[in-house]
Amino acid sequence: MRTEKRPVVSVIGTANCTEAQSRQAENVGKLLAERGAVLVCGGRGGVMEAACRGASAAGGITIGILPGPDPESGNRYLTVALPTGLGEARNALVAQAGQAVIAIGGGTGTLSEIALALKAGRRVIGLNSWSATSWEGDHLDILMAGDAEEAVRLALMEES
Amino acid sequence: MRTEKRPVVSVIGTANCTEAQSRQAENVGKLLAERGAVLVCGGRGGVMEAACRGASAAGGITIGILPGPDPESGNRYLTVALPTGLGEARNALVAQAGQAVIAIGGGTGTLSEIALALKAGRRVIGLNSWSATSWEGDHLDILMAGDAEEAVRLALMEES
Amino acid sequence: MRTEKRPVVSVIGTANCTEAQSRQAENVGKLLAERGAVLVCGGRGGVMEAACRGASAAGGITIGILPGPDPESGNRYLTVALPTGLGEARNALVAQAGQAVIAIGGGTGTLSEIALALKAGRRVIGLNSWSATSWEGDHLDILMAGDAEEAVRLALMEES
Amino acid sequence: MRTEKRPVVSVIGTANCTEAQSRQAENVGKLLAERGAVLVCGGRGGVMEAACRGASAAGGITIGILPGPDPESGNRYLTVALPTGLGEARNALVAQAGQAVIAIGGGTGTLSEIALALKAGRRVIGLNSWSATSWEGDHLDILMAGDAEEAVRLALMEES
Repeated sequence: MRTEKRPVVSVIGTANCTEAQSRQAENVGKLLAERGAVLVCGGRGGVMEAACRGASAAGGITIGILPGPDPESGNRYLTVALPTGLGEARNALVAQAGQAVIAIGGGTGTLSEIALALKAGRRVIGLNSWSATSWEGDHLDILMAGDAEEAVRLALMEES
Repeated sequence: MRTEKRPVVSVIGTANCTEAQSRQAENVGKLLAERGAVLVCGGRGGVMEAACRGASAAGGITIGILPGPDPESGNRYLTVALPTGLGEARNALVAQAGQAVIAIGGGTGTLSEIALALKAGRRVIGLNSWSATSWEGDHLDILMAGDAEEAVRLALMEES
Repeated sequence: MRTEKRPVVSVIGTANCTEAQSRQAENVGKLLAERGAVLVCGGRGGVMEAACRGASAAGGITIGILPGPDPESGNRYLTVALPTGLGEARNALVAQAGQAVIAIGGGTGTLSEIALALKAGRRVIGLNSWSATSWEGDHLDILMAGDAEEAVRLALMEES
Repeated sequence: MRTEKRPVVSVIGTANCTEAQSRQAENVGKLLAERGAVLVCGGRGGVMEAACRGASAAGGITIGILPGPDPESGNRYLTVALPTGLGEARNALVAQAGQAVIAIGGGTGTLSEIALALKAGRRVIGLNSWSATSWEGDHLDILMAGDAEEAVRLALMEES
């Protein structure tokens, strides 16, 4: 009997986030867990921790792909901490891990993950995150969501 | 409330394994799952697939850290498939992911994981796997187990 | 006697570039080589190949950090081909390799390298490349250059 | 005109080496440089530094693939320092960089590089380095060299 593979969604955003972003992230985590999705993130604080807190409270599985080599460096709402020792190169892993990526706010690390996810053909949903324009005037192909509910629906491709 | 972080054990070994190794790996997976440990592996066939099959049948969580970029390239007993696109460099991740690593048989990829795990200070348990000797006559610091039961006990540092 | 370490500049941009971008890249490569700088790039075609062609013709050293495992997959103007097998995660290496990064045009891969370079504290110079705006209205801290000459001067922090 | 791509040889070994190993490594570096080969290594001290010192004194190009993110953390005989921030995962890059790998002494990091190089199909030459035996009694396919001269000849596949 084949194991039921769970849908995986990456949640990205900065370790330094606002109260409002923290609430959004927590809500995203909760909604993903309620739908049976596994939450993957960079494993640190801020947006990542808030999303894990929401998912964990709803009984979900959370996986942190940590930049450093120490499994204890992750936030305390991780079911599984994966220390990589890869530094910022681990961003490519977080970006590819999910079938979809939800970006909440974020700095240059988050922007790199958005770009890497798009390059890898992943669906990217933005909640008050980056926009970017190429020299030719092309915009990044990010699906803009108005709230956590819409972000999760877009990530899991549910009909509204 | 802090999420209960699960113990994580990596199981390594070749995609081309013998029947006996496959049975050992399946048993290791089952025993790990029964103790609540998360099983991490390279996500492919052979030893990796057999260990996941055993863990999955016992209700455990299995995570495959895949060399390629495609989440569908993992074996069918994975709870979560993490495509990395890192090729053989993903061996460093598998080697570090667990607090302990159980090696079953294996080729040069497995040997690289044993060495990387030791370098990272992880506990390494061998089941009919590699032995190596340095130019100074030092032996690799692998704990040799006689069977799956002993391997899992050593990995989780249980008293016998 | 300490070896004279050469300044290193990364040149990034897409494998699919326009004629005008190719000329700019070739000129950037030539100017970097004339100043004794080592050129690092992703090792492939388009902007990367043109920059290497310019550097090589001027007697410079060119290093290609290739995504795949095959040293023969690089362009033909590389002094040294470094196959990584890391896929897109090698972008983090290209982004960090130079003390400065010159971006010419580019797609999402290039955008990820710009973001990773800024995250790593590298100086980033854009020649008709990306611009991006965060949710807070912050712009990426890219130095915009009007031509190859200015880009190289900014990369090497020469007075004009 | 195609750039003349230089042969690339990786030299691996520990940062803590004996005097005798240091002399061997320096000699290996010198002989590689005299034949026009580029020397790639992990960029740190011990065997790596000695090999770079020998190559540099003979006018060769030396490239250090550093584990950390800081270009200044390499030894002082590097022509080019490539900071990766990948930690021990950078071993996979060092192992693959050369068409051949010369291992001098070494600890578990070196053993991982030997195994990764063999896995990637590279030619591995050992100078008083590791030997290993699989559960089936197979030995690692390392070419044993008696001195630096023989190691370099084997690496470059020269007739004796």
